[in-house]
Amino acid sequence: MTHSLADAQRLHLERLEREYACLLDALGYDGVLLYSGHPHRHFADDQEASFATYGHFLHWVPLAGVTRSWLLLRAGQRPALYFHAPRDFWHLPPALPDEAWTQRFAIELRQSETPPPLPAGRFAVLGEVAPATAAALGAELNPERLTAALDELRVCKSDYEVACLREANRRAMQGHLAACDAFRGGAAELDVQLAYLKASRQRESDVPYGNIVGINAHGGVLHYQHYDLKPPDRQHSLLVDAGHRVRGYCADITRTWSGADADSCFPALIDGVTALQRRLIAALRPGVSYVALHERMHDELGALLADQGVIRCSPEAAVAAGITRAFCPHGLGHLLGLQVHDVAGRCRGDGSPLPPPPEHPALRLTRELEAGMVVTVEPGLYVIPMLLDPLRDAPVGRDIDWTQVERLAPHGGIRIEDNVLITAQGADNLTPGDAG
Amino acid sequence: MTHSLADAQRLHLERLEREYACLLDALGYDGVLLYSGHPHRHFADDQEASFATYGHFLHWVPLAGVTRSWLLLRAGQRPALYFHAPRDFWHLPPALPDEAWTQRFAIELRQSETPPPLPAGRFAVLGEVAPATAAALGAELNPERLTAALDELRVCKSDYEVACLREANRRAMQGHLAACDAFRGGAAELDVQLAYLKASRQRESDVPYGNIVGINAHGGVLHYQHYDLKPPDRQHSLLVDAGHRVRGYCADITRTWSGADADSCFPALIDGVTALQRRLIAALRPGVSYVALHERMHDELGALLADQGVIRCSPEAAVAAGITRAFCPHGLGHLLGLQVHDVAGRCRGDGSPLPPPPEHPALRLTRELEAGMVVTVEPGLYVIPMLLDPLRDAPVGRDIDWTQVERLAPHGGIRIEDNVLITAQGADNLTPGDAG
Repeated sequence: MTHSLADAQRLHLERLEREYACLLDALGYDGVLLYSGHPHRHFADDQEASFATYGHFLHWVPLAGVTRSWLLLRAGQRPALYFHAPRDFWHLPPALPDEAWTQRFAIELRQSETPPPLPAGRFAVLGEVAPATAAALGAELNPERLTAALDELRVCKSDYEVACLREANRRAMQGHLAACDAFRGGAAELDVQLAYLKASRQRESDVPYGNIVGINAHGGVLHYQHYDLKPPDRQHSLLVDAGHRVRGYCADITRTWSGADADSCFPALIDGVTALQRRLIAALRPGVSYVALHERMHDELGALLADQGVIRCSPEAAVAAGITRAFCPHGLGHLLGLQVHDVAGRCRGDGSPLPPPPEHPALRLTRELEAGMVVTVEPGLYVIPMLLDPLRDAPVGRDIDWTQVERLAPHGGIRIEDNVLITAQGADNLTPGDAG
Repeated sequence: MTHSLADAQRLHLERLEREYACLLDALGYDGVLLYSGHPHRHFADDQEASFATYGHFLHWVPLAGVTRSWLLLRAGQRPALYFHAPRDFWHLPPALPDEAWTQRFAIELRQSETPPPLPAGRFAVLGEVAPATAAALGAELNPERLTAALDELRVCKSDYEVACLREANRRAMQGHLAACDAFRGGAAELDVQLAYLKASRQRESDVPYGNIVGINAHGGVLHYQHYDLKPPDRQHSLLVDAGHRVRGYCADITRTWSGADADSCFPALIDGVTALQRRLIAALRPGVSYVALHERMHDELGALLADQGVIRCSPEAAVAAGITRAFCPHGLGHLLGLQVHDVAGRCRGDGSPLPPPPEHPALRLTRELEAGMVVTVEPGLYVIPMLLDPLRDAPVGRDIDWTQVERLAPHGGIRIEDNVLITAQGADNLTPGDAG
């Protein structure tokens, strides 16, 4: 960046003010009221679940975790932030930071969590708001066209947003390196996770998504959701998919490491997936179809499987027969921003739907790339018995070397994921290098 | 325990079967369907918030965290567990443990999360269920009288439940000792929390309530909700209020430690609150009014404040003038079980309300003690500016030594909390001893 973060944030907010004014005018609104949201209580209990502040609120107000606050936006008026800061000795009351952005807002510190009164006119209210509350305000609740237009406004990132995403990546990588060290030291999954949190300076409830820490076969469970308390008897592999949040902006990085007991075939496959991922990143630029890139991932996976002797047919035949999809059933990546799977990845710029191809139902990004998008690139290769077992007795099963599959199975899988900014000329990888 | 945990659990379930049969008969139901619940997604996002399984479901099924499952209970029939175990390669599918209790249930492993069909008759459905779902079942949704009766059934714990609570306490204490060590080593709040989790073998999303880790003045914020990333310049104190869950049953323990830079007055106050807490525990037995015990805490706090020279008036005068309430605004404790603030603490055995006295609005347990209850005993003493500052210019302010208050302020506060079973003869402290 050629200017400080505060300067970049000022330009970010100036753009938001302009764009919101245009959108409100185009859709015939006098203004929009954004609600931060608030945590829910567990049913029949007084304890609260974890919480994430509404993305469109965070687009303006860089305070991830803020609750019960409102932001009123009208063309030609300063953004009005109604910030919930109750006198409450039970908790540490929320406080605004001493940062330049606060001067761009008209700020009212409030005891109340009720919405502010709206002036006369046509207003929308966006966020997790009860219909009765919206009706009492006389406002339209989460109208689709306005929501879709605001989603679209988040697709291409400002310099400020890119700086936040880059910093989130820097911090997340510190966690990944510590996770690898913990694994090499013989840690259980829980201890790998705690080492990640300690080095990246986060608590579990603040990470942008549940960190995946899969040792051995757990690396093949795509969204593996537990942390084993005991280390494994033998160390084949570790897959860590874990991020960070900076001012709400998410990092989402995956690394895979060989363990001391890894089969000799495994490091070569990690190298293969890593090289494949770098080739895909090198192909990123405006105008590229992400669906085509996802299909190229399958072509390259086919070539890698053939090179390593896991399949006996040609790469093209493996793709055509669905073999590569059994080894990698997820998408190549997704948009990244204030949400880990950021909004508007499956629609055109005008908000009309752009569903994934039927043979790639999990693909979350189906658009053409544009400068300013930040995407993940995360090819993977797994032994997932639920997907591979049905192939054993099918004709296509003769093209698979099942001995190789069984050697790989205890390693679970491989995923290598970076976060990449699309630039006018190509791409800028926001994820720092690592020793992985 | 005189028999193994599995035997105790068998007796626990046999009692539940008997009691449910009686209740259903008395209230005219043919059966009740309990829903485990499921996690909620954040608004306009695909990420889920943390989740706690419904308490009445856990009373039968010892699987904290289980989701999308149903339990049908009818008099004279085996409990029928509809256990959600989908074929899902994205996650590690839930699996039932190989434990004796599973043989008491008729178990159906299910792909679906929809409720099972109900036989003809009058049924209730309990849990976080949509009204339309209950209507489609033809069942009454969360009827008050049945819910209150089932809450009451959870007030007095079986030997099995006590064993679980004792084990949760044992594990939590390992965390507390590690937290103290981390603090002595100069750790920041985040690192104290991670040391607690590591030693007690838990992840943050599994603890029964948000662990409170308050260094220095943060110890005076009763439900302090953050973990600072940096250690303080000076170490005055650490307050840790943190628990564990075993088969759903919660520990809830608080310890307070002096730091290297503590004022000389502080260790004496910790000792005073600890001794006071032990006297209150010694007074526990069936028939004791918990409100009266809470009032005794205030009498003893008055005596402690006078002994230590923090107040100049008599203990009686300090209590009468509300001074002790300004130093300790929370209740002496609460029921403990499948929820950290367990159900039915503020009603009589027949379910009729028993609100706290107006001068003690935060007290969560207003009943007479009964054998089998497990309660927390957690006297505290804090410097809370929001409560003490208004006394400075009031007549009562002359009875307070403000120099002493200011010496104490950087230490935040003190709370000492154990978990205690009420027995026929008195009480059994489930919290193991510590070096605190």
